[in-house]
Amino acid sequence: MATLPDKRTDFIEWYLAVVESAGLSDKRYPVKGMNVWTPYGFRARRNLDRILIREIEATGSEAVEFPALIPQTEFAKEKEHIKGFDAQVYWVTKGGSNDLDIPLVLRPTSETAMYPVFALWVRSHQDLPLNVYQIVNTFRYETKTTRPFIRVREIHFFEEHTCQVDQAAATARVRSNLAAFERMAAAFALPFVPVRRPEWDKFAGAFYSIALDIPIGEGRTLQIGSVHHYLENFSRPYGIQYEAADGSTKHVHQTTFGLSERLLGAVLSVHGDSKGAVFPREVAPYEVVVVPILSAASGDAPTRAANEIVARLTTAGLRVHLDTRDDRPGAKYYYWELRGAPLRLEVGAREAAARTASAVDRLGTRGLVALDTLEADVERALAAFDRALLEKARAEFAGAFALAGSVDDLRGSKQVRQLAWCGSEVCGHAIEQAIDGALLGTPEGAPPIAAPLPPGCLVCGSTDGVRWALAARPL
Amino acid sequence: MATLPDKRTDFIEWYLAVVESAGLSDKRYPVKGMNVWTPYGFRARRNLDRILIREIEATGSEAVEFPALIPQTEFAKEKEHIKGFDAQVYWVTKGGSNDLDIPLVLRPTSETAMYPVFALWVRSHQDLPLNVYQIVNTFRYETKTTRPFIRVREIHFFEEHTCQVDQAAATARVRSNLAAFERMAAAFALPFVPVRRPEWDKFAGAFYSIALDIPIGEGRTLQIGSVHHYLENFSRPYGIQYEAADGSTKHVHQTTFGLSERLLGAVLSVHGDSKGAVFPREVAPYEVVVVPILSAASGDAPTRAANEIVARLTTAGLRVHLDTRDDRPGAKYYYWELRGAPLRLEVGAREAAARTASAVDRLGTRGLVALDTLEADVERALAAFDRALLEKARAEFAGAFALAGSVDDLRGSKQVRQLAWCGSEVCGHAIEQAIDGALLGTPEGAPPIAAPLPPGCLVCGSTDGVRWALAARPL
Repeated sequence: MATLPDKRTDFIEWYLAVVESAGLSDKRYPVKGMNVWTPYGFRARRNLDRILIREIEATGSEAVEFPALIPQTEFAKEKEHIKGFDAQVYWVTKGGSNDLDIPLVLRPTSETAMYPVFALWVRSHQDLPLNVYQIVNTFRYETKTTRPFIRVREIHFFEEHTCQVDQAAATARVRSNLAAFERMAAAFALPFVPVRRPEWDKFAGAFYSIALDIPIGEGRTLQIGSVHHYLENFSRPYGIQYEAADGSTKHVHQTTFGLSERLLGAVLSVHGDSKGAVFPREVAPYEVVVVPILSAASGDAPTRAANEIVARLTTAGLRVHLDTRDDRPGAKYYYWELRGAPLRLEVGAREAAARTASAVDRLGTRGLVALDTLEADVERALAAFDRALLEKARAEFAGAFALAGSVDDLRGSKQVRQLAWCGSEVCGHAIEQAIDGALLGTPEGAPPIAAPLPPGCLVCGSTDGVRWALAARPL
Repeated sequence: MATLPDKRTDFIEWYLAVVESAGLSDKRYPVKGMNVWTPYGFRARRNLDRILIREIEATGSEAVEFPALIPQTEFAKEKEHIKGFDAQVYWVTKGGSNDLDIPLVLRPTSETAMYPVFALWVRSHQDLPLNVYQIVNTFRYETKTTRPFIRVREIHFFEEHTCQVDQAAATARVRSNLAAFERMAAAFALPFVPVRRPEWDKFAGAFYSIALDIPIGEGRTLQIGSVHHYLENFSRPYGIQYEAADGSTKHVHQTTFGLSERLLGAVLSVHGDSKGAVFPREVAPYEVVVVPILSAASGDAPTRAANEIVARLTTAGLRVHLDTRDDRPGAKYYYWELRGAPLRLEVGAREAAARTASAVDRLGTRGLVALDTLEADVERALAAFDRALLEKARAEFAGAFALAGSVDDLRGSKQVRQLAWCGSEVCGHAIEQAIDGALLGTPEGAPPIAAPLPPGCLVCGSTDGVRWALAARPL
């Protein structure tokens, strides 16, 4: 029972230790950065997917799946896009012992797989909007250090691609995606800030990119997704056109919305603590773990009570696990704390006799549930846990930002800095150099800290085009 | 509204026309044999997966996911296996502009991805059995003609891999898999026959292979899955060992169970008819389609009734679709017949006034449902449809086999032939030549036709080791 590294001082070591000791991912697969989804980790991933599917389908998007391999000829059609991805794609060059006539790219993202087919699907304004998404794995030949869930070479990926009649409709879809993400983030209990990336950091081929950033302590952030507006940047090279109501031919305006397994990395990073992982209810592999406490004197009453609890909660639709391993109760508590189970029910002889169970949630709150009112009591305990977790995350979110009034304020910062910026690339790079990290860009909507916008840019003092911006340290 | 080709005389043309006109798959993707899962096709696939997951998890198997890329060094460890797959794998040889030190295979199946890690997971007899499965896409550089769902280059694949303490336990797992497949096949209304493949046709590296074969008319069969017993054939090269209760070190015995999107191909092939696709309820993208019949005189009563029906059936957990397209009712009926919806509810002014709806199932059975008892009436209609579909499939299954008493009986056969075989490869090939197809192997358990086994081999007359065998024409 080794102690975990300190989350505050050794974040990465702490993170890696939690992923490994909670049994969420096995990185001993013989290709670097390609990890195995263990049974426990896969359960969390299934919940992640379920939340994304529920929220995106509520907006009328439909699931599809496009092939994983993209011909070089299609991949190369949009110039900025290929420039952005060329260095990090895997190439399939042989089938059996034959060299392929046209090499195939393992998708790093699916614009270039989907858009030649969109050109066939979209004919008339009646075919629009086309809102489809897929959940697939994507591949990037990552040269930076890999980390489970956060930076991997085979990425579990969610990508929505849409075609709209015009720019305004595409902008409305971007808004709809941001609203959908707010509902997803609520399920993960993850406060976030949508940030419009600077020009030099937008998605390859995009008109603009809004990233979804999450502070994870010590002035660092994690980008867990993004929404992009493409204008006609892809529809022109791929010929995605429609006949408008007035008989004219127009190119569609496109948007995309991307998320990934990094959301699990964010859940672990934000909620995890010195005891290990902490899962909000909807993501937890098991919402409730039941531990019978047996002794020579207890007989089988605790086992019978535990079985009843598991059967009833399963019937009620909960994900419940009965821990019948041959181990001490204390070791089991430690085990399930490490693995982040939201609620643990303990049943010994005394509880079984009284038709109760001790309930301990992952934040340490203790209570009692009565078997007579089991379902309602457990529901209440889980809801209280989720609320407490969200409150804790909100408090940490609020404390993660600080205003910077001068370039000097950026140096050695342990908070994400909110500052006034003129929008120029020169000043942007000066900010990045000072904070030794990234200018994340301009918050969409209200900035994290409600304050009057200073009159001039933090760097050059120019009063022209001044807006709020956020800057963070690298992960 | 073109007519479909004749299923009996032009099966493949009929099949391709159904897949395309029912909007289940788009094969215009610019890589041959890699098709697009359309929104409608993807809904069927999701149902397929749900059935497989439900039945395999009921046997205690847990979901995992292993990487798609396998290092050449791991891929080459089991000699028979690599011989079997070498000609049909895709090779990833470059990352960005770098040649990879070790080329990577895009998994054609996952033995060689999983087993190096199983060697780390399995330590003691307490870790056994290890029963895990994954649903992923696999890749085969297919040189034969490709067909949507039936023979493709990117395959939606289900694969269970297990480690057992010994041969008997592995044999028991094979039995458990066959029983699980029986429950799956019931959901697809697909009668099948498990057939032990001859030595020359077993899976590369297997001790034996039991294929799951489905007759699809005219003496042809479709193999929709298989269960393999590996003995220690893989555990030895991959070093998957455990400490037994007596302290000795042993290699595990392994099994696998594979299924694929071909199940959808089988559903279409077996149930489809001159009007198009026919989906059993559990697989159907929509179980119920509601068509309001509007006219100048009808007002909005049909629309209101249709909305009520959709809302109530959705609440009851059914997959329901409201067809509000601007088209004639007759065109909509044709459309949903083509697409195989099990039950269509039609609501005109008269039905709305009487608080009823006309119900027409995909086999043509007509009835009436009352809105007062809507959920129960629809449930009854769907159950009756599923029963009728299964009965029809069973009758066709029974008629698909015929006994062959001589080699001459095999020529030009329009039925799958059941015959006596001595088990020798020479006689096997003689049978294959005569039927111009494949000796499928020996049925596990009762053969399709209950008849006394002839005393001698159909070919050589030998009475040694005579058993039933099945022979079929190629697809």
